[in-house]
Amino acid sequence: MRELVVLGTASQVPTRTRNHNGYFLRWDEQGFLFDPGEGTQRQMTLAGVSATDITRICVTHFHGDHCFGLPGVLSRLALDGVGHPVTCHYPASGREDFARLRWLWPDYAEKVLREEPAQGDRAILADEPFGTLAAVRLDHGIEAYGYRLTEPDGRRMLPDRLAAMGLSGPAVGELQRLGAIEHDSRTVTLGEVSVLRPGQSVAFVMDTRLCDGVYELAAGVDLLIIESTFLAADAALAAEHGHLTAGQAARVAAECGARALVLTHFSQRYQDPAAFEREARAQYDGELHVAEDLMRVPVAKRRP
Amino acid sequence: MRELVVLGTASQVPTRTRNHNGYFLRWDEQGFLFDPGEGTQRQMTLAGVSATDITRICVTHFHGDHCFGLPGVLSRLALDGVGHPVTCHYPASGREDFARLRWLWPDYAEKVLREEPAQGDRAILADEPFGTLAAVRLDHGIEAYGYRLTEPDGRRMLPDRLAAMGLSGPAVGELQRLGAIEHDSRTVTLGEVSVLRPGQSVAFVMDTRLCDGVYELAAGVDLLIIESTFLAADAALAAEHGHLTAGQAARVAAECGARALVLTHFSQRYQDPAAFEREARAQYDGELHVAEDLMRVPVAKRRP
Repeated sequence: MRELVVLGTASQVPTRTRNHNGYFLRWDEQGFLFDPGEGTQRQMTLAGVSATDITRICVTHFHGDHCFGLPGVLSRLALDGVGHPVTCHYPASGREDFARLRWLWPDYAEKVLREEPAQGDRAILADEPFGTLAAVRLDHGIEAYGYRLTEPDGRRMLPDRLAAMGLSGPAVGELQRLGAIEHDSRTVTLGEVSVLRPGQSVAFVMDTRLCDGVYELAAGVDLLIIESTFLAADAALAAEHGHLTAGQAARVAAECGARALVLTHFSQRYQDPAAFEREARAQYDGELHVAEDLMRVPVAKRRP
Repeated sequence: MRELVVLGTASQVPTRTRNHNGYFLRWDEQGFLFDPGEGTQRQMTLAGVSATDITRICVTHFHGDHCFGLPGVLSRLALDGVGHPVTCHYPASGREDFARLRWLWPDYAEKVLREEPAQGDRAILADEPFGTLAAVRLDHGIEAYGYRLTEPDGRRMLPDRLAAMGLSGPAVGELQRLGAIEHDSRTVTLGEVSVLRPGQSVAFVMDTRLCDGVYELAAGVDLLIIESTFLAADAALAAEHGHLTAGQAARVAAECGARALVLTHFSQRYQDPAAFEREARAQYDGELHVAEDLMRVPVAKRRP
């Protein structure tokens, strides 16, 4: 299963209806926790996400609303006896910040916790069968990164075709590996017995002004989770504090061909979420979600 | 106004209905925040307690469920522009823990934050007109303190008596200060024109086994807030982990003559709060509250 579980949606300070930031991306057997703000541990309980589900934690930057949930989440890993490796990514300049928030017995941290900070304009943090995890530098004053998970394109084997050709067992694996094999005195190519299985991709773009990194992260993604702290009326404030408006975020989604858009990280100054929807809808006609706490957004079906 | 605002009531891990610990004691112009667990900042919003209301923060010990809300609360002081001094009390051995959690710009911390750690078996942390704040050592493995606020007894002046004697203005202040003055050719004593105004007291007793400190803190208080992590069936677990059962906590309240009792810090293993009430009621027949998040408990009227 691949889905986004929204744990919190407030910027800076929580409100009655919005907890501080927090986002869990379930990606088959992987679980990515993005920007655990204060209270993420409890929001996980409310959302049915367990500590055991987490395999990576990605922090965009070390402002409190994006990281004060770390001590609780990390402690919870130990408390719940999570034994698999959990890899933490964060801006390299924040090593000391992370160390302050890494509230764990050293022997447990040694066993389970991996730290792989991001640095430079872009960094490949993982290149695994489940996808490539990249960090791309954003523009928010302090060092900040957005994250993008890109699954490589693959091929889906067609059992009927395989059966018709009498192919089974190790020969199928060989065909997948080599792209073509000799069988029954002729060359069988992978294309004859399979169809394209497009890789999926998700981008997570938090606190930033518009910059090249935003577009690089969002290009052609299936799901774009992006901050829209402000509305157009406060565009000057957004620029001053290094944030986006709903209209800017939606225009990015449109220009980048994002297939689904989740707006989040709202300033408490706005009462009516519909205003974000209106501004975004004027720019973007795809699948649009104005995030609410505990909302779930399935990663859309693969592109044909 | 003097009241307890319960911000959170869970031990160790939050549940769907219970946030991590957190307690705010409104005491006229003073505001004591005890043991801010993770999410306290948001619970304050839900409870209508503002950062500006806080004048002191008292941490009993540095287990995460009693302090992971500190970064958020301290940051919030700065964000909301709180300008009055905020004094933080915590076990002296936890100076480094506190430093890790003190997430503030140094210049703001310098201006507003005071740190006055507790050490030894007991420490007087404040001796002010609003009362005496004492820390008393408890028994929980790591260094842990309970806190007690004790207002000195005073006298309430009786306007009718003063008027009948023709006393007003500076003479009244003099009488209060000296206990007796010469007036109209005779000695007027304070007792003639006033009645006793008993001081109120509140004790906050978190994670601990039964020990002398528990009784010292609870002796004769108007309001006892005390942990009751376990039920009697798990008394062995309570002893092992340095906690109290509901029955033990209530027996303390009864033996110490506490006028009102608030049980809290419940283990998530129990589903039914009524079980705590039953066990406590068997030991204590005073005003009993099994705490729930966002519950408010007024400090009872003064003893006659």
